[in-house]
Amino acid sequence: MSGGVKLEVVLRVLGFVLSFVAAIVVGLDKQTKVIPALDLVVSAKWHYLSAFVYLFAVDIITSSYGLLSLLLTLTNKNQSNTSILLLIVLDTVMVALLSSGGGAAMAIGMIGYHGNSHVMWNKVCDIFGRFCKHVAVSTVLSLAGAVVFMSLVVLAVVDLQKRPK
Amino acid sequence: MSGGVKLEVVLRVLGFVLSFVAAIVVGLDKQTKVIPALDLVVSAKWHYLSAFVYLFAVDIITSSYGLLSLLLTLTNKNQSNTSILLLIVLDTVMVALLSSGGGAAMAIGMIGYHGNSHVMWNKVCDIFGRFCKHVAVSTVLSLAGAVVFMSLVVLAVVDLQKRPK
Repeated sequence: MSGGVKLEVVLRVLGFVLSFVAAIVVGLDKQTKVIPALDLVVSAKWHYLSAFVYLFAVDIITSSYGLLSLLLTLTNKNQSNTSILLLIVLDTVMVALLSSGGGAAMAIGMIGYHGNSHVMWNKVCDIFGRFCKHVAVSTVLSLAGAVVFMSLVVLAVVDLQKRPK
Repeated sequence: MSGGVKLEVVLRVLGFVLSFVAAIVVGLDKQTKVIPALDLVVSAKWHYLSAFVYLFAVDIITSSYGLLSLLLTLTNKNQSNTSILLLIVLDTVMVALLSSGGGAAMAIGMIGYHGNSHVMWNKVCDIFGRFCKHVAVSTVLSLAGAVVFMSLVVLAVVDLQKRPK
């Protein structure tokens, strides 16, 4: 296994792990709180907000692709031009998906943490602190995943440039 | 000018125009409404929500890069490996930026249009219809820009693969 392929394997494992853990963290996220003053039980669940559902879907797609592309890299030693191009295109699509999922979750998270007086959306993270922290962790992991898939694109291009002429 | 370079120029012009128009549409977005029943004047401005400020910033960065990289493509005929790699890396970064900006604006827009009863964030687009429509237009343009920069990555890789061995 050459140095380039070794690095690719490490990055694909990393891309899979980051997005898989991100999916688990957001997909299991829920918190229930009792507010004694109001004698009220309130719950926060990840599927209440479409941005978090999108983040979960994106992480599932990305981790599945990460695993599949890892197996492809390990089994297919002499890759054709077409399969190299396909992997670069799909790696770039994963960058876009993870970035948009991270962006969406971060936008909602910002309102959750700080609220917005102009539209009268109150903050909720003062009540659901643990829930918000889990969303934040999943967002950071997903964005780190985007950086990993970006690195895979760069690595593939460098490999193409290094080919003997 | 070869076919590949011509297509690259067209795509860079398109990437610049899409993100520039997206920046203008969101950056000039505001709406004021009088609510006679309450004798109240209410305003929606793009910089009230950090997701829209982020979308604007991303569109400004991307359109500036689009223009700069267009000039570079037009003036630099024989690109070195380093400059090709740099352009691919930056094109991929633009994909990530535009996707995250589009994702953030779409997440907030969804709440604006439909509200969310779980966190008690009320919809606002029934009052500020034109404002929300402009945000939606800017979001779609930005995401189209992401697709254009993705196409530029694919084009560059195909060009590298076509090089005489």
